[in-house]
Amino acid sequence: MSKTIAIVFGAKSYEHEISIVSSISMKKVLKNDLKFIFIDKNREFYLIPSDKINSKLFSSSDYKKFDKLNIVQNGFTKKSLFGEKFIDFDIVLNITHGGDGEDGVLASLFEFFNIPFIGPRNEACVVSMDKYITKTYSSGCDVKTLPCQYVTPQSVNELKIDKYPVIVKPTKLGSSIGVSIVKSENEIEYALDTAFEFDDSAIVEPFIAGVKEYNLAGCKINGEFNFSIVEEPQKEEFLDFEKKYLDFARTEQVLKAEVSEDLTNKLKRNFINIYNNTFEGAIIRCDFFVIDDEVYLNEINSIPGSMANYLFDDFNDLVNRLSNSLPKKRHIEITYEYVNTIQKAKGK
Amino acid sequence: MSKTIAIVFGAKSYEHEISIVSSISMKKVLKNDLKFIFIDKNREFYLIPSDKINSKLFSSSDYKKFDKLNIVQNGFTKKSLFGEKFIDFDIVLNITHGGDGEDGVLASLFEFFNIPFIGPRNEACVVSMDKYITKTYSSGCDVKTLPCQYVTPQSVNELKIDKYPVIVKPTKLGSSIGVSIVKSENEIEYALDTAFEFDDSAIVEPFIAGVKEYNLAGCKINGEFNFSIVEEPQKEEFLDFEKKYLDFARTEQVLKAEVSEDLTNKLKRNFINIYNNTFEGAIIRCDFFVIDDEVYLNEINSIPGSMANYLFDDFNDLVNRLSNSLPKKRHIEITYEYVNTIQKAKGK
Repeated sequence: MSKTIAIVFGAKSYEHEISIVSSISMKKVLKNDLKFIFIDKNREFYLIPSDKINSKLFSSSDYKKFDKLNIVQNGFTKKSLFGEKFIDFDIVLNITHGGDGEDGVLASLFEFFNIPFIGPRNEACVVSMDKYITKTYSSGCDVKTLPCQYVTPQSVNELKIDKYPVIVKPTKLGSSIGVSIVKSENEIEYALDTAFEFDDSAIVEPFIAGVKEYNLAGCKINGEFNFSIVEEPQKEEFLDFEKKYLDFARTEQVLKAEVSEDLTNKLKRNFINIYNNTFEGAIIRCDFFVIDDEVYLNEINSIPGSMANYLFDDFNDLVNRLSNSLPKKRHIEITYEYVNTIQKAKGK
Repeated sequence: MSKTIAIVFGAKSYEHEISIVSSISMKKVLKNDLKFIFIDKNREFYLIPSDKINSKLFSSSDYKKFDKLNIVQNGFTKKSLFGEKFIDFDIVLNITHGGDGEDGVLASLFEFFNIPFIGPRNEACVVSMDKYITKTYSSGCDVKTLPCQYVTPQSVNELKIDKYPVIVKPTKLGSSIGVSIVKSENEIEYALDTAFEFDDSAIVEPFIAGVKEYNLAGCKINGEFNFSIVEEPQKEEFLDFEKKYLDFARTEQVLKAEVSEDLTNKLKRNFINIYNNTFEGAIIRCDFFVIDDEVYLNEINSIPGSMANYLFDDFNDLVNRLSNSLPKKRHIEITYEYVNTIQKAKGK
């Protein structure tokens, strides 16, 4: 029998609204019994009935008429006449993009409260959320990324740009928020200010107009990799927040990119290296550049828009198989052996 | 008036017991009103009265007779006759070593539930907990570390050791747990097996007998760095878990290492680079090697044993000043502007 999945979404994030749209899209692609647990901007949990969910519910604050939940060891509870009652589900699917969901906060909550979930673990979040750490992590995994400079408001004077255009990105945000393409020196200050509005640091990379981009999604199930088709994203110069956002609402299949078997294999090898053990339990999308036949990682989406469901032949099957192959934490035995040793050592 | 500090300790960690000892040591060095919030091995919270705390309380399970707490938005509550009642404190001091405390789980909880705390933030935890990520992070901060090889049970065959002795460490644990010095090839398999008992990966570094080691603790308060004295740790070959552990119980001042002003400044510069903005809000201890006058970072203790209080002239003052200088998160405005745009775009 298929599992009951609780979709957790919303939260304190610049991508709060994208998360709502992504979550609603799951109704069309997952055949499981679904529950929807909304985290509002005050980080309170609400249980939204599956047949009542629509995006207006949230902008109107009407969600507040539904049950408020508490997170406790082993799950979520709601108040009932006879005390607290557990919400019945088997597994959480974390579809909270950006803050809280992709920065490790929710992963940590689920870990602490012993709630099984599909989604990136805390370390995976930090590695993918921080674009600078992504680069150092990738180099350790033998995956190329574009060179970059790391800039803070204090170190702006040390920035040296030999060649324009460059692209300026806040270090820790997704969905193109605060990102600018800078074509000449007189635009750089404004671009950095924009990035610093959203984050304490930024990275500056060469911008390569018309660079070939390919996206590949996948996950590891019982030690075997399961890949999506390779997508060549449609783009103008680059997708701004609004375009990407509207795009997230799609649930239809995209066209498979026309790529050689050789390149497909290269992309898969790079994906495998990045995924490593770090991303176990998550369906991620890696966005790559290809320059002179070399593959470069652009970014890791640890909770991609609409879970990248449109890239998979049978997303429903993928989710259900992954739900049986989640990473397990080691058991930690706490024996108080050392406290006892100390008590003896102190003669207590 | 000085703040009431809630010391949070224990939790699901190989260093659960060290955390108990560190926390009890705070009674001697902090003049603030203290509350003690114990996280037991099942990750339930208990409020331990300050005058009742001693290490036996935990090994005997007697802590269970005290109030059980819930974590909710803005704090912890306990059941009272008239519903849930908030526990009164101003700030948490996170003294949970290892798992939960230093891996970002508790930092994420405090962040999610809007509880101000002294301690490393989530990203700082991941950067310092994972010894491999520490190295890549350090290189980005212009701080040297020893070269290493990253090994998983699957990649053992690729390991190439040119020269013994080496030191084998689980990638993600502190306090020398699972660490071995390996003097020749026939000992390496056993050392790796030991490391893999505690973690899914290990790092292998050259072991330099008699290397000079110096520890420096500190924090940033209102943009200014506050440093401890430089400590030259007493060591035999290296401190094993038990020795380090017993050592953690100390509260007396240690002797200042005899180091030149030049070296002291070098250590401080390296500390500043590592601390960056990443470790704001935390008192950390960096452990350095000095080889041929060059400084190498060995490890970052984001919640050092006994908070390294014995290295500071006035630890009480430091904690109280830091409690007024904690990093603040940006406000995230959630407007539902984009959801409204989509509703329009869809003609809904």
